[in-house]
Amino acid sequence: MIILGIDPGIAIVGFGVIEKTRNDIKVIDYGVITTHKDTRTPVRLQQVYSGIMQLIEKYKPDAIALEELFFNNNITTAITVAQARGVLLIASANYTDNLYEYTPLQIKQALTGNGRAEKKQVQYMVKAILNLSSIPKPDDAADALAVALTHAQTNTVLSQTQIR
Amino acid sequence: MIILGIDPGIAIVGFGVIEKTRNDIKVIDYGVITTHKDTRTPVRLQQVYSGIMQLIEKYKPDAIALEELFFNNNITTAITVAQARGVLLIASANYTDNLYEYTPLQIKQALTGNGRAEKKQVQYMVKAILNLSSIPKPDDAADALAVALTHAQTNTVLSQTQIR
Repeated sequence: MIILGIDPGIAIVGFGVIEKTRNDIKVIDYGVITTHKDTRTPVRLQQVYSGIMQLIEKYKPDAIALEELFFNNNITTAITVAQARGVLLIASANYTDNLYEYTPLQIKQALTGNGRAEKKQVQYMVKAILNLSSIPKPDDAADALAVALTHAQTNTVLSQTQIR
Repeated sequence: MIILGIDPGIAIVGFGVIEKTRNDIKVIDYGVITTHKDTRTPVRLQQVYSGIMQLIEKYKPDAIALEELFFNNNITTAITVAQARGVLLIASANYTDNLYEYTPLQIKQALTGNGRAEKKQVQYMVKAILNLSSIPKPDDAADALAVALTHAQTNTVLSQTQIR
């Protein structure tokens, strides 16, 4: 099973593609889609859309998992990122019904066994589980691999996390 | 010039289509695109996308104007609506570069001359300017006509309001 993990954003969208077999999980690709702050927002959204569609068409994922958005303070940032997330959701939905989302707490819990783990611990586990020589860079790519791995580890209870 | 005004939302997207000629402004259509709360979010976003694309293809607007989002309190609502707004932006951008956005303050100022006008006053002006027999229902449709009218009245300074 191929899983595409996405860390939503407008300037940087992290992505991570993994393959889960019966006995193994391996990395296929990871990286970021970037857009420039001087580009108009509608165009940046188009770039996010076409960037993710290219990855979807290339890797044909069986499932797509997104990190859920949580914001405590900056509502302007929240709105900007949420607009991009809407675009990522519709791009994903145009390809598959198998869309899932996980909260930061669920991701930390799945990868480290501790919902309050620090970011570094999560990144260390991404490296360890995928047998990588170093922690994936940038953080957005590591976060995207983390959400993909979370799905790989919890997809026996798919219906609980499928995006509604 | 045909102007499509949009009041973004996920459950209800208001739309208003007006035609501005040298001496006149007239209404062409208005209404709402609705999605059901029991429908999964990615599917609702697809419905918003296809709903607005149908209107765009039908009326071929020369410009599209969206109301800017402002939220003070409920960040969950903000994120949900912003996701839909991202979808409306990309749908619009797939059709035209002539995208504009106006704040509630700009809309009130343009239609009533008072940036702190009440909603009822704005709705009254929508009815008056467009020579309608009653205030358009629901509010979302009236709001969408208001943003379209705002663009019609201020588009001598397009570059100032074009979405960046």
